[in-house]
Amino acid sequence: MSARVGVIMGSQSDWETMKHACEMLEELEIPYEKKVVSAHRTPDLMFQYAETAVERGLKVIIAGAGGAAHLPGMVAAKTELPVIGVPVKSASLNGLDSLLSIVQMPGGIPVATVAIGKAGATNAGLLAAQILGAFDKDLQERVRERRERTRDAVLATSDQLGADGE
Amino acid sequence: MSARVGVIMGSQSDWETMKHACEMLEELEIPYEKKVVSAHRTPDLMFQYAETAVERGLKVIIAGAGGAAHLPGMVAAKTELPVIGVPVKSASLNGLDSLLSIVQMPGGIPVATVAIGKAGATNAGLLAAQILGAFDKDLQERVRERRERTRDAVLATSDQLGADGE
Amino acid sequence: MSARVGVIMGSQSDWETMKHACEMLEELEIPYEKKVVSAHRTPDLMFQYAETAVERGLKVIIAGAGGAAHLPGMVAAKTELPVIGVPVKSASLNGLDSLLSIVQMPGGIPVATVAIGKAGATNAGLLAAQILGAFDKDLQERVRERRERTRDAVLATSDQLGADGE
Amino acid sequence: MSARVGVIMGSQSDWETMKHACEMLEELEIPYEKKVVSAHRTPDLMFQYAETAVERGLKVIIAGAGGAAHLPGMVAAKTELPVIGVPVKSASLNGLDSLLSIVQMPGGIPVATVAIGKAGATNAGLLAAQILGAFDKDLQERVRERRERTRDAVLATSDQLGADGE
Amino acid sequence: MSARVGVIMGSQSDWETMKHACEMLEELEIPYEKKVVSAHRTPDLMFQYAETAVERGLKVIIAGAGGAAHLPGMVAAKTELPVIGVPVKSASLNGLDSLLSIVQMPGGIPVATVAIGKAGATNAGLLAAQILGAFDKDLQERVRERRERTRDAVLATSDQLGADGE
Amino acid sequence: MSARVGVIMGSQSDWETMKHACEMLEELEIPYEKKVVSAHRTPDLMFQYAETAVERGLKVIIAGAGGAAHLPGMVAAKTELPVIGVPVKSASLNGLDSLLSIVQMPGGIPVATVAIGKAGATNAGLLAAQILGAFDKDLQERVRERRERTRDAVLATSDQLGADGE
Amino acid sequence: MSARVGVIMGSQSDWETMKHACEMLEELEIPYEKKVVSAHRTPDLMFQYAETAVERGLKVIIAGAGGAAHLPGMVAAKTELPVIGVPVKSASLNGLDSLLSIVQMPGGIPVATVAIGKAGATNAGLLAAQILGAFDKDLQERVRERRERTRDAVLATSDQLGADGE
Amino acid sequence: MSARVGVIMGSQSDWETMKHACEMLEELEIPYEKKVVSAHRTPDLMFQYAETAVERGLKVIIAGAGGAAHLPGMVAAKTELPVIGVPVKSASLNGLDSLLSIVQMPGGIPVATVAIGKAGATNAGLLAAQILGAFDKDLQERVRERRERTRDAVLATSDQLGADGE
Repeated sequence: MSARVGVIMGSQSDWETMKHACEMLEELEIPYEKKVVSAHRTPDLMFQYAETAVERGLKVIIAGAGGAAHLPGMVAAKTELPVIGVPVKSASLNGLDSLLSIVQMPGGIPVATVAIGKAGATNAGLLAAQILGAFDKDLQERVRERRERTRDAVLATSDQLGADGE
Repeated sequence: MSARVGVIMGSQSDWETMKHACEMLEELEIPYEKKVVSAHRTPDLMFQYAETAVERGLKVIIAGAGGAAHLPGMVAAKTELPVIGVPVKSASLNGLDSLLSIVQMPGGIPVATVAIGKAGATNAGLLAAQILGAFDKDLQERVRERRERTRDAVLATSDQLGADGE
Repeated sequence: MSARVGVIMGSQSDWETMKHACEMLEELEIPYEKKVVSAHRTPDLMFQYAETAVERGLKVIIAGAGGAAHLPGMVAAKTELPVIGVPVKSASLNGLDSLLSIVQMPGGIPVATVAIGKAGATNAGLLAAQILGAFDKDLQERVRERRERTRDAVLATSDQLGADGE
Repeated sequence: MSARVGVIMGSQSDWETMKHACEMLEELEIPYEKKVVSAHRTPDLMFQYAETAVERGLKVIIAGAGGAAHLPGMVAAKTELPVIGVPVKSASLNGLDSLLSIVQMPGGIPVATVAIGKAGATNAGLLAAQILGAFDKDLQERVRERRERTRDAVLATSDQLGADGE
Repeated sequence: MSARVGVIMGSQSDWETMKHACEMLEELEIPYEKKVVSAHRTPDLMFQYAETAVERGLKVIIAGAGGAAHLPGMVAAKTELPVIGVPVKSASLNGLDSLLSIVQMPGGIPVATVAIGKAGATNAGLLAAQILGAFDKDLQERVRERRERTRDAVLATSDQLGADGE
Repeated sequence: MSARVGVIMGSQSDWETMKHACEMLEELEIPYEKKVVSAHRTPDLMFQYAETAVERGLKVIIAGAGGAAHLPGMVAAKTELPVIGVPVKSASLNGLDSLLSIVQMPGGIPVATVAIGKAGATNAGLLAAQILGAFDKDLQERVRERRERTRDAVLATSDQLGADGE
Repeated sequence: MSARVGVIMGSQSDWETMKHACEMLEELEIPYEKKVVSAHRTPDLMFQYAETAVERGLKVIIAGAGGAAHLPGMVAAKTELPVIGVPVKSASLNGLDSLLSIVQMPGGIPVATVAIGKAGATNAGLLAAQILGAFDKDLQERVRERRERTRDAVLATSDQLGADGE
Repeated sequence: MSARVGVIMGSQSDWETMKHACEMLEELEIPYEKKVVSAHRTPDLMFQYAETAVERGLKVIIAGAGGAAHLPGMVAAKTELPVIGVPVKSASLNGLDSLLSIVQMPGGIPVATVAIGKAGATNAGLLAAQILGAFDKDLQERVRERRERTRDAVLATSDQLGADGE
């Protein structure tokens, strides 16, 4: 089945973060593609990727970048698909620059921004699943079941608090 | 037609911001409902709203709140629908507290966060449209046409730069 | 004797921080209970925990969480007991997000916020003791004695300044 | 009846903020006293105030200050009573300096910190009520009733959203 | 004479800031052009503008934008000319978001960033003049003379300190 | 051939960062000189360096400094050449202090500021090349070729995503 | 009597802030001089001012500046006298940039930094008085008496709290 | 000879930072004393230390503390001597909380604040020397000579740039 979610990132070094988005998509059985697309180093590829996304059958794009993170916003400027932005933790400002560069978009071009780093990447995969799941009852059910497993795992941890720490 | 997007906000005073989300939904002809739901002052209503959202036919929830803004994240914890969070500008910290309280969700429960204030609210409406539009070609077309109108409006402004300022 | 203080935290990984609250309660001989309760992953358990806290005899709740830290504020929304919030140091923003998410509560629902991390957890235990101690002369006396021991320990350190450093 | 809560502030100009704490105490029928006590300009008065607080029958102290806000922490250093700190919004840094100066106390001397400004002052009054209410069923009931009134007020506002704005 | 500096901005509302760059270019007799070019609303125009800048004879581009300010960085990605970025003061975060979005470029694509707001726009014009002046002795001389006038103006103000304020 | 770019830094410890500027200049075959010049410890040398820069044939100065980073701005105050400022990552505030000290120059004396740390130093070298290249077609061509190599390197990485990580 | 304190500021617009330093010096009967000296626009005057300060009989220099505030640190680099730095509130970042530019000096050249804005300017005057007072018993006595007046003024305000506000 | 500078710190763990102040005082042959004095754990000792400082012959007090750093400001409130505050780097916020808690003093009670951490402690020693040196020509001469040694050391480093790095 062709990819329904496109996962792109500004540099190969972002993979350490963005792989968590891909793992979530795999866990929820969502076909996806992944690619390095740099706003600054491959601007034409970026535009081409965004312009052809709808016709290639993508429904959601996940874009991760760090520092002056322009990839999510620029892809959003070139497609009508919902774009999820993942702020990658940056070398000097801990991802605060990445976050503000992604989330503070002007009225007219939204980016659905998630948390900085690994948690954000994981949630980008989940958010894509929830978007698709709003129109796919089976997928929505898998999201629901995943939540139940997570909830049960939390409930099981209370008994272990301090078990090895005291 | 029944509402496909639910717009909620933590307090009546958030309306000044959140009305821009509603205006966008109206411009794009998307049926929606609006309601004051406070995470802290009406927590049971909040849970009930989130729990019944799927069955009432909603596809996306837009939640705006300021300060220690828990509404978007807590609604997200109680529904499988995608939740868009709008950080409302706060009295002392200009919405930086609202932004961090909404966007920094832990892995497992995403909130699709947009910009602080009016631009964010406008974009929350648009993002909801883009999510619905991924599965509704007519709506996606209306989003595209709106973009073209926006582009044309920008192109027309260059001639006026400094026309009255010099 | 039944627990008078409930210590809860959003995830098992918060125990490394929150154990310092428990150690203080033990040092001051205050009966307490501890539990993992996640605002986002176990929202129903959280509400149930908060709703039954008064009837179960708790007088104070200590809640620790990191990032978009909603646990203290949401528990506070569901109980009339005083709730102490501990901002756990977060992965990317050093706990500034945790702090703002906990302390910037809207008028109507207070959270008694302490410092980020270990010092805050220690102080959460002490603050609970001081609250209980305002109505329990023996406990207040134990708090006073602890302070005197701390003071004496400080007084003893001056002589050692630079003793091994020069 | 003698005062059970002491409300102090670093300067007369803090009254504009701190009066909201006093209004809440009055609404909940809690006897209190109020006073200007400056950590920097009346340090001896501050120590004397803190040292005699227990014997004068106070159960909770609320202290508000701005900028390098040392009053709450220094009062806390001189009494075993719980001290609630209110960060007053400052001239240049919007109260971020006040907040950090109050909340980041070292292990051993806690300050129960609330939000910056008016919301924080209101909540300081409420938090004092919740602390006293843990040992006073009538007061706890008044806190509960106040919450219900607040909840009902929120529920009533939804119908008015946009009523005059559209 | 054809334009040697291109001044572009993300929106007409940026003119209030960016006109100070144009005024400086006029004062120093540097031919320039000005245009509204939006990274997000007119991305294709932006690329075209950047791609043709060299052949049209431009030597420097000045780009101003606010919030998630992608214009300077994206133009820089599409031309070998030096690009000067002006962070326009934003509605909620005072231009800190604009600044970080512009300055924190990844290795490979520099943006010469100046101060937030009016001072930055003025300096963008001057910096363009200094760049051109490094290869144009007459212009460099005009920059030098302007500095001398500025210096003399400062020297003249000391006598007036407090003249009307005391 | 005599140096066309001067690379200076406030302390020998900045070399770890600033060497990346020098490496870029070497890669692009631009003659340069390098020197430790401290605004605070060798102020007279700094003034002399800046005052003689034009006559010695320099066209661009790159200045790196950390903390209260005054070197770029003070050199800019003493020469009409364009000055590029590199904020070196500082010990306690991660270079945010360096960045603000360099970029927030008053109207009249610009500093072309680049990103904090290594990426910024690399880009300072490139920016100098782009400035020189605006008047040197061969150099501009070398910049263009370097970009193409960078672009091709990015395009080649996509295939390797997750190749060793899964 | 010749001036013992030199009050300088980067621009005439800083007078609104810096006049509070002068008022304090006058109140405490300390001879002083005041002057506009700009680090960036009159660098040579700045060096000359600093170099001759000792021989002209100054004992302390107070320097105020905003934004990339280099004046205090550069003057400190050119004199052995203690230099007090006043961060003037800046247009976009509220003086946080001024504060960090002044206080984060490298080891070797200290600046005695006070608070942002009016309070800081007032305190700069007082700090100069305390420095001089350490070697001038009469002046130290005047400082002490001023404190007593301030303390008495605070003590008198408590009675008026809420007198007109309720 | 009796101590002319008192070096105090809030906790023994601050010694790692504050020893750099002591080393500078020793290098410049200034008699000093050092002591652990905690604002929060030994408040009475703190007041007694400050009250007796003048009569014991101290001319300057250096106080270092971290987090909600109240020691410098509270000592300043109890003595007419100039007080130098050293913000010690804190566990979670890198000393930004320490800095703001120390520098943002209200009008009436100044603290001469230096940089965060080691550089600040070094400079605190130097600043004390410069204050004393304004009234002690021999000491002022030693400060001047130290600067010349520092300057010469910087001048000597330029030749080594990249000597081992290339």
